[in-house]
Amino acid sequence: MAANPQFLKYVDDHQKDYIDRLSKAVSIPSVSGNLSYVKDVEAMAEFLIQQLTSLGAWVEKRPIGTHTLEGKEIDLPPVVIAQVGNDPKKKTLIVYGHYDVQPALAEDGWLYPPFELTPDPNGSGKLYGRGSTDDKGPVLGWLNVLEAHKNLGIELPVNLKMCFEGMEENGSVNLDKFIESEKDKFFAGADCMCISDNYWLDTKTPCLTYGLRGINYYEIKINGPDRDLHSGVFGGTVHEPMTDLIALMSKLVTPAGEILIPGVKEMIAPLTDDEKAKFEAIHFQMQDIHDAVGGDVTISNDTVKTLMGRMRNPSLSLHGIEGAFSAPGSKTVIPCGVKGKFSIRLVPNLTVAGVTEHVVKYVKEEFSKLGSKNKMDVYLTHGGEPWIADPNHYSYRAAHKATEAVYGQAPDYTREGGSIPVTLDFANILGLNVLLLPVGRGDDGAHSTNEKIDTSNYINGTKLLGSYMYELAAAEKN
Amino acid sequence: MAANPQFLKYVDDHQKDYIDRLSKAVSIPSVSGNLSYVKDVEAMAEFLIQQLTSLGAWVEKRPIGTHTLEGKEIDLPPVVIAQVGNDPKKKTLIVYGHYDVQPALAEDGWLYPPFELTPDPNGSGKLYGRGSTDDKGPVLGWLNVLEAHKNLGIELPVNLKMCFEGMEENGSVNLDKFIESEKDKFFAGADCMCISDNYWLDTKTPCLTYGLRGINYYEIKINGPDRDLHSGVFGGTVHEPMTDLIALMSKLVTPAGEILIPGVKEMIAPLTDDEKAKFEAIHFQMQDIHDAVGGDVTISNDTVKTLMGRMRNPSLSLHGIEGAFSAPGSKTVIPCGVKGKFSIRLVPNLTVAGVTEHVVKYVKEEFSKLGSKNKMDVYLTHGGEPWIADPNHYSYRAAHKATEAVYGQAPDYTREGGSIPVTLDFANILGLNVLLLPVGRGDDGAHSTNEKIDTSNYINGTKLLGSYMYELAAAEKN
Repeated sequence: MAANPQFLKYVDDHQKDYIDRLSKAVSIPSVSGNLSYVKDVEAMAEFLIQQLTSLGAWVEKRPIGTHTLEGKEIDLPPVVIAQVGNDPKKKTLIVYGHYDVQPALAEDGWLYPPFELTPDPNGSGKLYGRGSTDDKGPVLGWLNVLEAHKNLGIELPVNLKMCFEGMEENGSVNLDKFIESEKDKFFAGADCMCISDNYWLDTKTPCLTYGLRGINYYEIKINGPDRDLHSGVFGGTVHEPMTDLIALMSKLVTPAGEILIPGVKEMIAPLTDDEKAKFEAIHFQMQDIHDAVGGDVTISNDTVKTLMGRMRNPSLSLHGIEGAFSAPGSKTVIPCGVKGKFSIRLVPNLTVAGVTEHVVKYVKEEFSKLGSKNKMDVYLTHGGEPWIADPNHYSYRAAHKATEAVYGQAPDYTREGGSIPVTLDFANILGLNVLLLPVGRGDDGAHSTNEKIDTSNYINGTKLLGSYMYELAAAEKN
Repeated sequence: MAANPQFLKYVDDHQKDYIDRLSKAVSIPSVSGNLSYVKDVEAMAEFLIQQLTSLGAWVEKRPIGTHTLEGKEIDLPPVVIAQVGNDPKKKTLIVYGHYDVQPALAEDGWLYPPFELTPDPNGSGKLYGRGSTDDKGPVLGWLNVLEAHKNLGIELPVNLKMCFEGMEENGSVNLDKFIESEKDKFFAGADCMCISDNYWLDTKTPCLTYGLRGINYYEIKINGPDRDLHSGVFGGTVHEPMTDLIALMSKLVTPAGEILIPGVKEMIAPLTDDEKAKFEAIHFQMQDIHDAVGGDVTISNDTVKTLMGRMRNPSLSLHGIEGAFSAPGSKTVIPCGVKGKFSIRLVPNLTVAGVTEHVVKYVKEEFSKLGSKNKMDVYLTHGGEPWIADPNHYSYRAAHKATEAVYGQAPDYTREGGSIPVTLDFANILGLNVLLLPVGRGDDGAHSTNEKIDTSNYINGTKLLGSYMYELAAAEKN
């Protein structure tokens, strides 16, 4: 079911109001990771509550405990939950967003004050400001939808349950507990879920995101002598921990990115024709990634292989070494203890435990081959499972139709190479299909200086979220 | 010719005076690497000048230019040169020492105030204090010898030219230029040279040191992307500089210390029977090195192989990586540029240039095998040649006899695994045989907290230096 034409017209007619709303939100510096901004995070929650209330929603502010910030124990930012509609004949959609932002300092190189939403004076339509795209713009997109329907006197086609947190940029502390505790209360009876907190792959093509890689982070620890040694005095006489560590780290991955740990590749889920077709259909050019990394250092020259390297295959990165000499200049030290750090990005059907079993076994075997008298340990420091949704679920089909209606083109079906932990929490705890429906573009610079959202993305994004509701309402459950 | 018995008796009778002299010297905190102690370094030079003058030596204080210390341009500590005797019928001996010391702060864990010479209250004979063994004790050993001869009215058996610098602990800046400029003046006509600025290998056996390893320090630099990347977004798509670097570093040396760079091992001078015998005769037990490094992590269980690993063979140590993640914790970064640091200890006939040629060729070849699109460079950051003296030179034979006379045992013939750059400067510029004749023991803790010299080493060391002069005077030049 296409969106109500009155809704679409309202959005077009109220662009200025919507930008004003975003401007007010950006002006509240709700930085969750800094003690100086605690009041502002609170103020941002109040802003949302006031807006949602005035738009006719049922709203509650929920405390979720305390945490320690810069050595001080303080209340966590509250979770704001809101609901519009409770009609058992309608589908129920949960949306999630966050109202906190990354830090931003003008002196870091911002073109304009980071907490003043500033339109590009060249008329490109870019709206600069911290949080404009991550994640205030998308959150306000839902409020814009509510405003249109309220002022037009139209009922929403679905029941809408909203959950907005203020700790996403600082670890989403306790959100999992909150979801768990509200599973059979506020979140009860939901049909599916939508999160708008990621981005188009490029700057032109809307997308639906149906997968995230997980991550296992490991340390290989090697200890030998009980103090750092002078390489003049001891070089050539003792087993050096660095030599052992470098030997082990060199056996994990090839320069072409092939993971050498037996058993890992074998765990990768077979590629289906449908998946392959979705990767082949993605709008992506090698120049996109060359621009993003500042040169042609890609392993493959093929777009599909490159996309699958990022989204569908595991990867192993060597991050660094703790305990060795790492400063500029020269130091003739034999470090007595070193820790090598690496991580593996996980994809279906790799599991945190399964991969760890292979890693530990392999690294231990390889170490025993070295014939070193040093001591070695290898262990997981943290792990997160991969996530994948069914991209043919009716929620995705609804978003597909909505994208075609708003943008006049079919969306790319993408996966993210990184992790968005809240996605897993919602998907696993509530057992729901989660749709990641980005509003912003790949060059928005979330977390960077000069974060922006394009006016067209903000306005069309509002239409997209509304249209998705209509398509979802009409969709046949599969 | 054995030492004059009157001299030996004088030393025994004046132990207290000699310890008082050392006490005065240690009380002057002549730290050359710290702007706060500039006056003290100057005072220490004046102390030496006053002492040498009162002992009848011709003395001059020589400025050797300026340097920058903690951002301020200041005069370098002067070189103190002194001479006793100018008899063309006698041999002429140059001795070198340094009057500056390493920093020392009581709060670093000193048992007693570092700049107050403190006898061990348990009566072990240990004299604690910064500079006691490095290098004030040995320098004063020569002054003690002069005092004895002056007060006994006995002429020295050789002409003695002394050169004491105040910058050894801070790079011996400009000393090479000074040696060069005085080559045909103050240093003219010398027969050989003696430096007492290293240590016995153990705590019981006197030694003569006839070799030092050189060092070539290298960096392998790899650059790829123009900015650090997120491993979630880019892992699996780009050639990662760390992967390339680890691959290259793993191809340099085995965990058993074998250097894998073709051509390097082939440069090692063949082992002579005489050298082999000298290594086999060294008093050394595996427990000595296990104690020194805090455990059994030695590559070999054989004493001779271990000694040769330290003294006679090249070694390659991997020191660390600049540019990668090196802090505690986890960071999912793909570093865009990294520098791997390693050094090779050089022995005859390895040369700085020859080894560098092999290293650069090999690393470039290995990099090309990786098939990476990243950029690699490998280069020498600094190099120092190895040094070896003829241990059968008459100066060594004289020191051998003096050691037997004073200690009742033949000395070990050792080499140092590290470098003492002034040795090469003197040996190369003056073209002289240099004898390294240590006074202190292997556990003296030069540069550490609780540096000490044993009273017996200080007193017997004075006898040793004097006796060496007598044996040198009588030695037949070979």
